[in-house]
Amino acid sequence: LLSKQPAKGTKLPVYGGEVGPVWAYPDYQLDCVVADPKKGSKMYGLKSYIEYQVTPTTTNKPVNHRYKHFDWLYERLLDKFGSAIPIPCLPDKQVTGRFEEEFIKMRMERLQGWMSRMCRHPVISSSEVFQLFISYKDEKDWKTGKRKAEKDETVGVMIFSTIEPEGLPDLDLIEVEQKCEQFNRFTRAMDDGVKDLLTVGNEHWKRCTGPLPKEYQRIGKAFQNLSSVFTSSGYEGEAALTDALTAAGKTYEDIAQMVAEQPKKDLHFLMETNNEYKGLLGCFPDTIGVHKAAIEKVKEADKLVATSKITPSEKTTMSKRASTMSYALQAEMNHFHSNRIYDYNRVMQQYLEQQVKFYEMIAEKLRHAHSQFTTM
Amino acid sequence: LLSKQPAKGTKLPVYGGEVGPVWAYPDYQLDCVVADPKKGSKMYGLKSYIEYQVTPTTTNKPVNHRYKHFDWLYERLLDKFGSAIPIPCLPDKQVTGRFEEEFIKMRMERLQGWMSRMCRHPVISSSEVFQLFISYKDEKDWKTGKRKAEKDETVGVMIFSTIEPEGLPDLDLIEVEQKCEQFNRFTRAMDDGVKDLLTVGNEHWKRCTGPLPKEYQRIGKAFQNLSSVFTSSGYEGEAALTDALTAAGKTYEDIAQMVAEQPKKDLHFLMETNNEYKGLLGCFPDTIGVHKAAIEKVKEADKLVATSKITPSEKTTMSKRASTMSYALQAEMNHFHSNRIYDYNRVMQQYLEQQVKFYEMIAEKLRHAHSQFTTM
Repeated sequence: LLSKQPAKGTKLPVYGGEVGPVWAYPDYQLDCVVADPKKGSKMYGLKSYIEYQVTPTTTNKPVNHRYKHFDWLYERLLDKFGSAIPIPCLPDKQVTGRFEEEFIKMRMERLQGWMSRMCRHPVISSSEVFQLFISYKDEKDWKTGKRKAEKDETVGVMIFSTIEPEGLPDLDLIEVEQKCEQFNRFTRAMDDGVKDLLTVGNEHWKRCTGPLPKEYQRIGKAFQNLSSVFTSSGYEGEAALTDALTAAGKTYEDIAQMVAEQPKKDLHFLMETNNEYKGLLGCFPDTIGVHKAAIEKVKEADKLVATSKITPSEKTTMSKRASTMSYALQAEMNHFHSNRIYDYNRVMQQYLEQQVKFYEMIAEKLRHAHSQFTTM
Repeated sequence: LLSKQPAKGTKLPVYGGEVGPVWAYPDYQLDCVVADPKKGSKMYGLKSYIEYQVTPTTTNKPVNHRYKHFDWLYERLLDKFGSAIPIPCLPDKQVTGRFEEEFIKMRMERLQGWMSRMCRHPVISSSEVFQLFISYKDEKDWKTGKRKAEKDETVGVMIFSTIEPEGLPDLDLIEVEQKCEQFNRFTRAMDDGVKDLLTVGNEHWKRCTGPLPKEYQRIGKAFQNLSSVFTSSGYEGEAALTDALTAAGKTYEDIAQMVAEQPKKDLHFLMETNNEYKGLLGCFPDTIGVHKAAIEKVKEADKLVATSKITPSEKTTMSKRASTMSYALQAEMNHFHSNRIYDYNRVMQQYLEQQVKFYEMIAEKLRHAHSQFTTM
């Protein structure tokens, strides 16, 4: 808390917004499209890898990155901003099956989610290292930028020294502590809620892709089986019923397939969003830990002043820095909340929309099956 | 096969219809309404029982019957017609819980099904004993009729001697045997098909009333839980999302209940119909057994003529009677087939109609839940 301010570097202002302290948001919302995974190779084909095309909506000029570049960016962001801003983990590293289409598609989708989230963060997206990653000019530019980023000394808790609350009064320690406790409680509760939803979602996924379609298939088969028994009756005027019964059976087989394929169309996105949030929420205990440690330090400051280990003016500086840290945490929480509301609103809409379509399609199929029967 | 013809009694004609040999069908289709179960008592309240009101559509005059009266009728019909016509069992006797509402309702529904089936049968519905049951004038009439019916001597295989094929040529033994084999194969195959559908239906019922609604409930709870965590955020502008999320959660709880209640609305009737057919099909092996025995007897006739145990003219009579039996079986099978087509057509329509409504209602509920979210 008494470390020197870095000589230069970008200042990170915190403003008083409508919802409380907020980061400085850019006028234009950056986003990136991660697409077009291509197999590349190095060392005369000895080493092969997958390269993704990353296209920022600002320049519309694509750059290529391997997973390990994303990982490099993640490490830089974690070093530089991790004390103040939760940096969500990248999608898992995987050794086997790296070149399988399904895996590449899934990883790309998750890298896209991660990049979009980073783009949406005003502090991260405007940072030099992030800008380098999405818009380096050529290989030389990238190499130079990489070296520079790796030498960046504003890492760890240093980040707080670059944060500048603009026109906001210093907070007293009680308020700092209360805010910290509030965020701690909320993120823990949300972590539980998200994990619960993931558990329920996973079970639902298993049922939808396992026993449920099997059951609809068996119903379908039972109808068709009965229909073919009826066909063997030798009784005249049987065809109208048996045709309709066969069609009904096939309809339930179709429904079985629809049920099995549905989770990919709706539950998948709900699960992905919640998985992202689970990752994000997993970063908060560290961020909050940094704050709690700072609060404890300020609490000890009185003693240190009494034993002349620090001067009263140094104590004031410590208290002021704790206030700055709290503004940073509040700005981050407000950023988190607004994104959360946006994300959950969107994913729930998408989920319910697909669910409606799903049930409507089943009803439509059954209505058609129903119409095949003769009204007597 | 050589027993004497009964001196008098109703003759049962078999005609050549469009689909083959058929019973004589009445112009007016009889039906009965079984309703209004009432608790009655006897011996100064020492014995209590449930009495059902049976109202034939012909007279529209209700008569009262206890389960044991139905059972008496069943025994009479079985004695009299059982060799030629499969008489389906009554719904199970039950000792405990006889007076519980649910049980009474279920028994009434099944007695209704049984009565309707008996009414639809031209031979049974026009029989003296059946007419007595549905339209006795008073207690004395009932008692007298009962005694008379119990003394009826035209029972067992005697019924065949009352059957008269009208304008139909005698069938040779090969044809008789082929028909019998065909019906045997069909009823066995249908028995398997019906049992298969019942097994599948039972499992589906269990899933729909057990794990499936529990899962929807858990999904609903998870949404509502997340919503209440969100409410605790302290962030402004949270209400739109949390209200919608709570509503979505409640919708899934509603769906859980709908899922659990649905089988009673559709699967129930499909199961009841198949249970009825399972019962009916269970009677065929006996009916077919009687025919097979007769066929064997005719086959032995040549030997008996050779050893002078019967005369050639007696052999001709035996052969003629086997032909009559085959006509009776064919008429019965044609009756069975036409009823089966009617029943399955109706129950499948009903099932699918309710299924359509069910899925439409879910879609509608989800559409409403979807509309609660803000489009950003």
